[in-house]
Formats: sequence, C-alpha cells, structure tokens
Amino acid sequence: MSRFFSGKYASLEPYVPGEQPRERKYVKLNTNESPYPPSPLLTERVQEQCGLLNLYSDPECTALRERLAARLGVRTENILPTNGSDEALNFAVMAFGDGTHPFAFADITYGFYAVFCALGGVPYMEIPLRKDFSIGLEDYIGLGKNIIIANPNAPTGLALPRAELERVIASNPENVVVIDEAYVDFGAESCVPLIEKYDNLLVTQTFSKSRSLAGARLGFAVGCAGLIADLNAVKYSTNPYNVNRMTMAAGSAALDDDGYFMANCRDIAATRGYVSRELAGLGFELTDSRTNFVFCTHPKIQGAELYSELRARGVLVRHFDSPRIAAYNRVSIGTREQMDIFLDAVRDILNERGGAAL
Amino acid sequence: MSRFFSGKYASLEPYVPGEQPRERKYVKLNTNESPYPPSPLLTERVQEQCGLLNLYSDPECTALRERLAARLGVRTENILPTNGSDEALNFAVMAFGDGTHPFAFADITYGFYAVFCALGGVPYMEIPLRKDFSIGLEDYIGLGKNIIIANPNAPTGLALPRAELERVIASNPENVVVIDEAYVDFGAESCVPLIEKYDNLLVTQTFSKSRSLAGARLGFAVGCAGLIADLNAVKYSTNPYNVNRMTMAAGSAALDDDGYFMANCRDIAATRGYVSRELAGLGFELTDSRTNFVFCTHPKIQGAELYSELRARGVLVRHFDSPRIAAYNRVSIGTREQMDIFLDAVRDILNERGGAAL
Repeated sequence: MSRFFSGKYASLEPYVPGEQPRERKYVKLNTNESPYPPSPLLTERVQEQCGLLNLYSDPECTALRERLAARLGVRTENILPTNGSDEALNFAVMAFGDGTHPFAFADITYGFYAVFCALGGVPYMEIPLRKDFSIGLEDYIGLGKNIIIANPNAPTGLALPRAELERVIASNPENVVVIDEAYVDFGAESCVPLIEKYDNLLVTQTFSKSRSLAGARLGFAVGCAGLIADLNAVKYSTNPYNVNRMTMAAGSAALDDDGYFMANCRDIAATRGYVSRELAGLGFELTDSRTNFVFCTHPKIQGAELYSELRARGVLVRHFDSPRIAAYNRVSIGTREQMDIFLDAVRDILNERGGAAL
Repeated sequence: MSRFFSGKYASLEPYVPGEQPRERKYVKLNTNESPYPPSPLLTERVQEQCGLLNLYSDPECTALRERLAARLGVRTENILPTNGSDEALNFAVMAFGDGTHPFAFADITYGFYAVFCALGGVPYMEIPLRKDFSIGLEDYIGLGKNIIIANPNAPTGLALPRAELERVIASNPENVVVIDEAYVDFGAESCVPLIEKYDNLLVTQTFSKSRSLAGARLGFAVGCAGLIADLNAVKYSTNPYNVNRMTMAAGSAALDDDGYFMANCRDIAATRGYVSRELAGLGFELTDSRTNFVFCTHPKIQGAELYSELRARGVLVRHFDSPRIAAYNRVSIGTREQMDIFLDAVRDILNERGGAAL
C-alpha cells in the first residue's frame, strides 16, 4: 500500500480468487469453471466483432437483453447485463446499501459479499448457517435488512426451494432481497419467476459456469424495472460500456445454443453423482450439492492437508481457512477423466495413511 | 429509481455517453472512436481464446503487463490493466479520495471525474480553465489536493508539455496527481517517463482510441509500485477478472503491431490538419487540438443548432450543453472520406444561412 491509500479502507481485505497457476499444468478443480469449452457457435460470432472493435459496444446491450428476456420470460427492462455477476452484486450493494440500510448474509457463503460491503462502507451482519450448513430461514423472516442469499449456496452446495425463499422475500417488503443464482442451472429452482410479484427481489446469474464463459466475464441481474434502473444509475456512473462487443457476441451465441448448454449441465450433474458416490465409498462426508462442485470432508485427514497432498499430485481444489469449514474441500466437477485422476489421487493419499478407508 | 435506491446518491447524475444510435446509419463523429479497424493480427489471437473461454482469465494479466512494460520502459509492477481507462480513473478516485482527501480538476474536462467523485462521496473542486480554454497551471501548483488533469484535455483538445505538468506533480508531493492520457498518442508528451521520479504520479491510458479497441474495453494505469498496489486492492475488492481473455488477447495483438498503430496515428493527425484548415477557411474558430477530434465554433451559428443540422444530414458530432462551451462542437476525426461528408454538410448548412462564410 502507498502512503496515499485512503484510511477508509484500513480494514479492507480484498477477495482472494482461486489460484490460476501458470508454472505447472494442474487438473484444475478449484474455481468452478466448466470443463467444457463454450458453444461452437461462438467463435464465428466473436470473429464477426473483431473488425468492429474500433467502435464502442452498445451500452444498453440491446440484442443480448432481448435474447435473455425471451429466454427468461421477462421484459428487457428487467435485465442488466454486467461484467460477471460480481459486478451485478457489487452494484446492488452500492445501490441499496448505506449506513442505515445494512446487508445480511450467511456466515458461510460467497466471500465477496462482505468485501463489497467493506468497500462501500456498508454495514453487514453475518447470520450463521445451521450446524449442517443449511440456511436457517427463520433467521431471515421479517429481518428488516437487505439480504443476499446464494442459492445454491457456495461453498456448501446446498439449495433451498423457491417457495421457501419466497417467504423471505415476502416478509421483508421494505428491503431488497438478492438471490445469487450463480449455480442454479446445475439443479436448483430459480426465483426469476417471482420478480413480477415482488418489487424488492433482485436475482443475479452468470454465464461463467453453466455456459462455459468464465473467461468472457458475463453476468446479469433480473428484477423489476425500478431496481434495474437503480443498477443502471450505478453502471452509468462507473463504466457505461461494461460489457464489451466480444463478450456480448459470446453471450448471445451461448443463449442460441440451448441444447449444448443443457447437455453440459446434465453431464456435470451426472459426473457429480458419480464423484459423490465414489467419495462416500472412500469414507467422505458430503453435502447434497446442487452445483458444479462437491463439498467434502474425511474423518481421517484434515482439510488443509488433503488440499496440499492433492496439489502435490497435480490436482488443485479449493480449501477455505475459515474455522467452520476448515475440515472441508470444495472440488469443482470436471470431466469424467479429470475426476478419475482426482479420485485416484485421493485413493493414493488415503492409502499412504494406512489404507484407512480402503 | 426504485424506493430502495440509497439516499447517498440523491444528487448523483450519471455520465451520459455519446449516442450510439441504432435506428439509422450516421457518419459517426461523436465518440472519438478510431475510424480504422484494429490490427489484423487481432482476429486470430482472439479466436485462439474462444475455445478456452470456459476458463477464467489470468487475474494478474501477466502476458499483457509484460508487453506493456516493455513498450513503456517500466516494470510489470508499475502497470494495472483495466476495463477501459474509466475503470482505472474510478479506482484512483476510490483509492485516494475521501472526506479529507478531495480531488481537483478543470471545470471543462472529461465529465466522468465529477461523476466518480459523486459516486464515491469524494468532495471535488472544479478549477476554471482560462478564457482561451488553456489550463492555468499556477492554479495547481502546491494545491494540496489530489488532482486529475487530462492531457490533452477533452473536449478542448489542448495539451501541456511534460515539463509543465512536472511542476504540478513536484509541487504536490502529499497528493496524488493523475494524468489522464486517453488522447496522448495523437500528438502530446506522455508523463510515463516521470513515474520513476515521483511516487505521487499516476498516468492512465486507453486502447480505445489510438489502438482502435473502443469495443474491447482496455485501459491501464501506470505508476510506482505502491500506487498500483492500492489500485489492485480496489480491483480485488470489486472484480478480480476485470479484463477478460478476449480483450487481453486483443490488447497484446495491438501492442505487437506497432507499425499499424503508428501509421493510424499519423493518418489521423494528417486528417485533423486537413479538417482544421478547411473549417478555418469556412470561418470557424478552432482550438489547437492534439487529439483525434477538433473543437470548433462558428460566429454565425449556435453550437446546438449546428449539431442538429448536422444530425439531420446524417452526421453525428458531440455537443455539450454546459454554458462555457455551448457554442462549440466536438468532432471526431474519421477517415478522409467521412470528413469530406462532414465538411460538405457544414458548407450546406452555412450556405442555407445566406452563404455567410463562403
């Protein structure tokens, strides 16, 4: 930090993204990327834009919003495309949070919510998950604070039914409830159908995972026209051209290839089932993940140790240091081949410890 | 706005970008885009990334930073690539501005500086340009506030020599001085060579104009390692993957084709000379622009009227409503052919008013 850095950030701890190692080739199961390349439709669409890059992109993202609206069954005024759903979430914290409008979210959830609040000087409250990592909905009923719930939650993988979330939304009519659906396509119920009914509901989704576009940065927010107008006020005060031409073309192509998208989601869910069964057979405990990762712990090996041993064997997973989940690792679902390499490495590690689980 | 929008933004007026009309084909000279497509090297490089978009981009932008560092004669730790230079400027306001560290900039300059300050709750002071639109440097000497100077300035087009700016930087050692060099490649002196000498100097540049990448969103900040670390703290608290894979590849390709870049800059400067001479011959007054636009006024026609008449003839330029410059229009330099269409339209408009200037 320089001597000029504002004191308002004295306690800011930036988010630490999963490693993107360049020194060695790993089986990379640490950042919940899709193992499948994006739709083959995409290359030509992106290429068409290359010769036009001297021109700014449409700041209103009209073509993309039209496609998204059709797909989601909402109107274009209900959608704001963003530079990843991180941007949508940050805009929401900026737009709706302040000294008298704090946010609340789970103590174990996507780490960026707390960072966005810290950055914006927005007070926040962490609500502990239950012992089994499920969200205690009663804690959120009539809470009277802005709320963010990741559904499914990360890194736990657990999902809530829409009807349950609706109780939270309906019981906090004076506050915004944000449902972060980054992983919804892998097996949870979306709250998008509720946006007509509740003017305090904002849903965010991303193209990073299920649509294989982590490297393109595209997400979006869905909500009533008023909430989207608020987010637009923030967007036009930071970066009007937040989604570039190539990313917009990539997103449109991905939406046009729904068959490919759905087949990938099915494959990932099937591989998740396979990995879960294998891990359970090796003595692991797992949450009931509805995402493209599993969250697992083993009674005979510490979380950090398993992480390191896997890393030494060329397999990267994600371990979080925070006390309640230090025993766990989050393992992204790759291809069947990648997961077999992972499972072999796990067997090898357990074997070395005296074949504990074999 | 919804009823949830934070009161802290009560007086926020988002930036209004130049129109990106879709209903009709205009000769578009209103957003300072390059009339030339990006380097032909780019398409293949971007295409290579398309099949890898399921993977996040390198959040450290290592390859791009290495190329930029080599080109600028600095170290990689001195560079932060951003989603357009708008993002770099916003990060700077966020990192260095607060209630006791206000910013100062000209009253006529890039309109986003004031918006960034308003968004971040950072007080700011506007320092009037002189009557001839030049920056009165004495106003900035020993000012004791953070400072942003666009060099060349927009929309005036006027540039200051590096030695003059160095006096401002040297005389404000306790404050950050940001030099926004969005247009520097068209004929001004860069302050990048001063970053070794001054730990309070931050320079921002963009690939949008001179490198024909407005539609890809790529800019960067250059400064001492400490300042760049501060900006990184903000980046990792908002959007760690702020530059996507395709944009990174596009930027690297653009840097690898320096001959193309320099030829375009020369052509634009030559066309600017041609347009300036023609406009002067028609009775216009122009500033001495060192950018890819001209800033001009005519004694016989109001600025807003010229704008509308040009628009009616299919030529879009940019008119700003603020009182001191309402008589002017900012006209981006396109191809020679585009500028001849513009000049013909201007002649037609002046003719209709009684051949005033012919």
